[in-house]
Amino acid sequence: ASHPWVRSLMQPHVPGRRCCIIVVFFEVFVCDGVDGTSMRRVATAAAVPLGSMTYHFTSRDDLLREAFERFATSVSDAFETRLAAVDVGDHEALVRALVDVIGLDVFPDPRDQVLTHELYMLATRRPEIRTLTSAWMRRSRTALERHLDPKTAGLMDAIIEGVTIHRALEDQEKGRLDPEMAVRRVLGNERTTTP
Amino acid sequence: ASHPWVRSLMQPHVPGRRCCIIVVFFEVFVCDGVDGTSMRRVATAAAVPLGSMTYHFTSRDDLLREAFERFATSVSDAFETRLAAVDVGDHEALVRALVDVIGLDVFPDPRDQVLTHELYMLATRRPEIRTLTSAWMRRSRTALERHLDPKTAGLMDAIIEGVTIHRALEDQEKGRLDPEMAVRRVLGNERTTTP
Repeated sequence: ASHPWVRSLMQPHVPGRRCCIIVVFFEVFVCDGVDGTSMRRVATAAAVPLGSMTYHFTSRDDLLREAFERFATSVSDAFETRLAAVDVGDHEALVRALVDVIGLDVFPDPRDQVLTHELYMLATRRPEIRTLTSAWMRRSRTALERHLDPKTAGLMDAIIEGVTIHRALEDQEKGRLDPEMAVRRVLGNERTTTP
Repeated sequence: ASHPWVRSLMQPHVPGRRCCIIVVFFEVFVCDGVDGTSMRRVATAAAVPLGSMTYHFTSRDDLLREAFERFATSVSDAFETRLAAVDVGDHEALVRALVDVIGLDVFPDPRDQVLTHELYMLATRRPEIRTLTSAWMRRSRTALERHLDPKTAGLMDAIIEGVTIHRALEDQEKGRLDPEMAVRRVLGNERTTTP
């Protein structure tokens, strides 16, 4: 329950039951995927009457959209906070912040990997989810563009994505994929060795 | 039907009905996801008797594993072929080949994006699928390590992943994310401009 998107729910303005439904939704969803996650299933797991479920969320898609919006927002918030703490022009602080994004902020929890791929896949099928992923990407770029030119910002966002996905997919990669080297290469200030 | 993984099925040693079942499986799967893709659903869509389905594939998971193995193999084959055509030490030919991998080989078909995310997600949940993605990643690395040191090879694989995912997710990114710049930065021979 110490996960950022869970913590982001534990705010005074989020009614307890709404929060509880979303937390349980994530648990059911990570285990069983989109189609295993019916309103009835979540209601049962959350010990919430179905009538109360439909009071908070008119449909499964409504719940899905809000839950993923909270997930994406919490990841974006962590990213923005880390980059906002870096002074513009402080190159080494930027490197450290980006290394921390890869090593600490993305996929701190194995569930995040599942949620990210589900989100990207839903984005290919549903326009309302694509709006959500587009907004997420735009926020990341804006945060990066405070420090980098737009093309480098785009590549930095891409390598953060690729490195975190590959590290999560293959356990051996954790040692091999070097976040600092990734960041420095994309920044253009670390030269390759010959093979 | 000109898609690489479909073409890879159209080989003399693959029995026609087995091929047909897998092609139809992909079509159903891309539309409806894991849980919408029952054996019965695929059999109906392929106009194959259920008994014939179970002769070729003992279970839905058996069909899923073989279909994704063919998908991963066809993507790996294209990648290997392109890199094998580059002479070791021919830096500019390597850059061109990698740019073509990003621009032409990965996600030539929008369905590939869905299949890739589904595959990665299944890999988080099922060990037999994780074996498949690990083998895929190892093949890519081996092909890259003919030309690059292991750490650079890992980063190259990661940026190809990240750039193709982001280009597919956000249409505007197609113009902004520059495959050649991505490749040259990771190779370490293109320096950044100041923001």
